[in-house]
Amino acid sequence: MRSAEITKDGHLASFGNLAMSSLSAPSSLGSLAGIRVIDLTRVISGPFATQMLGDHGAEIIKVETVGEGDVVRRQGNMINGFSAYFAQFNRNKRSLTLNLRSERGRRILASLLEGADVLVENYRPGVLASMGLDDETLRQRYPRLVVGRINGFGSSGPYRDRPAYDFVAQAMSGFMGVNGEAGGVPMRAAPPISDMVASLNLAFGVSAALVRRERTGQGEIVETALTNGLVAMMGYLAAEYFATGEVPKRTGNDHPMLYPYGLFTAADGEVAIAPSSETMVMRLLTALGQQQLLEDPRFDSNDKRMQHREPLRERLNSVIGQRTVAEWITQLNEAGVPCGRVHDIAETFEDPQIQHQQMRLELDQGEVGHITTTGFPVKMREAPAAVRCPAPQLGEHTDEILEELGIGAEERRALYDQGVI
Amino acid sequence: MRSAEITKDGHLASFGNLAMSSLSAPSSLGSLAGIRVIDLTRVISGPFATQMLGDHGAEIIKVETVGEGDVVRRQGNMINGFSAYFAQFNRNKRSLTLNLRSERGRRILASLLEGADVLVENYRPGVLASMGLDDETLRQRYPRLVVGRINGFGSSGPYRDRPAYDFVAQAMSGFMGVNGEAGGVPMRAAPPISDMVASLNLAFGVSAALVRRERTGQGEIVETALTNGLVAMMGYLAAEYFATGEVPKRTGNDHPMLYPYGLFTAADGEVAIAPSSETMVMRLLTALGQQQLLEDPRFDSNDKRMQHREPLRERLNSVIGQRTVAEWITQLNEAGVPCGRVHDIAETFEDPQIQHQQMRLELDQGEVGHITTTGFPVKMREAPAAVRCPAPQLGEHTDEILEELGIGAEERRALYDQGVI
Repeated sequence: MRSAEITKDGHLASFGNLAMSSLSAPSSLGSLAGIRVIDLTRVISGPFATQMLGDHGAEIIKVETVGEGDVVRRQGNMINGFSAYFAQFNRNKRSLTLNLRSERGRRILASLLEGADVLVENYRPGVLASMGLDDETLRQRYPRLVVGRINGFGSSGPYRDRPAYDFVAQAMSGFMGVNGEAGGVPMRAAPPISDMVASLNLAFGVSAALVRRERTGQGEIVETALTNGLVAMMGYLAAEYFATGEVPKRTGNDHPMLYPYGLFTAADGEVAIAPSSETMVMRLLTALGQQQLLEDPRFDSNDKRMQHREPLRERLNSVIGQRTVAEWITQLNEAGVPCGRVHDIAETFEDPQIQHQQMRLELDQGEVGHITTTGFPVKMREAPAAVRCPAPQLGEHTDEILEELGIGAEERRALYDQGVI
Repeated sequence: MRSAEITKDGHLASFGNLAMSSLSAPSSLGSLAGIRVIDLTRVISGPFATQMLGDHGAEIIKVETVGEGDVVRRQGNMINGFSAYFAQFNRNKRSLTLNLRSERGRRILASLLEGADVLVENYRPGVLASMGLDDETLRQRYPRLVVGRINGFGSSGPYRDRPAYDFVAQAMSGFMGVNGEAGGVPMRAAPPISDMVASLNLAFGVSAALVRRERTGQGEIVETALTNGLVAMMGYLAAEYFATGEVPKRTGNDHPMLYPYGLFTAADGEVAIAPSSETMVMRLLTALGQQQLLEDPRFDSNDKRMQHREPLRERLNSVIGQRTVAEWITQLNEAGVPCGRVHDIAETFEDPQIQHQQMRLELDQGEVGHITTTGFPVKMREAPAAVRCPAPQLGEHTDEILEELGIGAEERRALYDQGVI
């Protein structure tokens, strides 16, 4: 066990390095302390969701198949035999192996649910019901339980039984269709964004349902789907489509409604510049010594600049090319123009702000050694997120958890022999 | 007011069309019923977060500048003078105009906070403190208040005062760096993904803090940043980088670790196909009548297929090109291979599954007419999300809300005359 809450210099890790001296000592327990989650999920969407809950204090019992466990344990790069990919999504969980195809395994799951606040699953629709846990049974047996569920397309509708995968959800949600070069092909985002947006939606939905449960005593069934989550992210592009009937075009790194905006070429690389108002455009051109361009009839309004993008882009690049990325970032930020470096991942984690915000976390994986993961995106002042335990070995806590359920050593040996645990 | 909860045929709108006959009637109140949110946010990240809370039953009071309001009210396409973009992010809110630069305006805000559960803001760090509401003051005056905050880079650290914008956050988080064609430039996602991921993180964080507040009576300060949210979305790409020190390369629509996977060319367009395991690859090749390829020494393992992508891609396209997208989608889904059409936005909202899941919502904006927005990504069975009211006109509820605070008609007239409201 290792706490990431208080750093060497007495600052609160998960709220950046903001000095906390004038405030009370933070609780080490997290906002969701006392909430017990039974986690039947695997791969990304479910595990990232339950990790968010665990980072913020919920107790997570990850139920895995006997002998195999989450398929991600065997994927990606291994550090002393332990998957870095698995570690990224499974800190703050205990692992219990359980054969849910056996009657005894299901009885153990039932015992776990008796003492649980939340059940999370990302099976295909119908699989949990086939284990005897259809919605009506869950509701009657565990009236206070919040059930969280992620699937590809939703648990009803013509595609409910289709196999789902992030790339397909990116394609079908319209998300890929707006990304990519003008005139090029639809382009996915490289991270599995539909999985991870579903994770955030589920973490929100489960927490909101817990607020209601605290107030009414009633459980809930919360569901989100990979496609639905990305559709909701279409935001203003969807709004413009609904308003005009026109399908938004791919515009690469250019903004469909603003110019100047995008990547520009400095002496030693590219710089991202995004003035979002006329005031900011004025600040940008002034900082570049090009304020006279606003008097040029080709460039004196946003609409005209959109029509004459290429000559303006050329003109701006001819100035921006005279100095380095670092010089422009300093100068433009001082002028109040949003801008920044286009980081690769290595540069991101070397960036002083990202480091200050502790977006890189080291997990002490015991015998495996240290494994680095991304940090906490949600910072809390009083009850901050923390690393309470690293990602578990397969079945590492099977004995401990069964002991808590009152299943003694002898019975456990029999269950091992029968392949139930 | 218009409820989206029960459709004409008696089904529960926000849980897809799943028949609810065997379950109890759902509550019309939403999970966060009884939670009052004072919303000082504007543009996207804050308004999308508070809309999530409002969709699930929280009461949202949107505080806007007198005479102007949220800048988004003047952006994008107008429907009878009302911004479709604003409607997309501001349903389920009431609007109060208030001059927070005036002493009286601040006293009214203080009265609102006395009766509130949550305050949400997305100012630059320090702006709220400059209005007299620094963290210590908030904590002492409103010990039960949950304060939610979104900013660009975090409220501490070297970049805390920099102006932020989605494009810059996409660049600095490493997100753009992994997107785009192999050999091409780093490519943003077209939707403002850093804003909207921050929204989801904040909706989660505020809800988790409310769970703790229900249990301990204590308030919280919750913060998320555009950059931090996207850094956490780097997920397994970050894990692979941490494990190997190698920066992930851009691979366009190809998966860096799997093949076949990606876009393939059918007779009438492109089809997204994503088999994620050896079993699924076997199913795909069998469905294509090409199972013999797995005996070809160039293609008999995933590693070898990665090395010989182009000949395999050519071979698969030569078969896939013989039938239509629709034929392949039917056939491959039946074979258990994840696949789908690459939709543009229009096709997304015409898709029968997206329609079944009611991911398109019509708001009745009164005199303005109907405005269409995206639907609810989080479905709840007992206390579902619903449209309780459409997006408000600027200051539409100023009188009503001040009346609730005990400020009578005469005093309100004076406040109007003084420009306080």
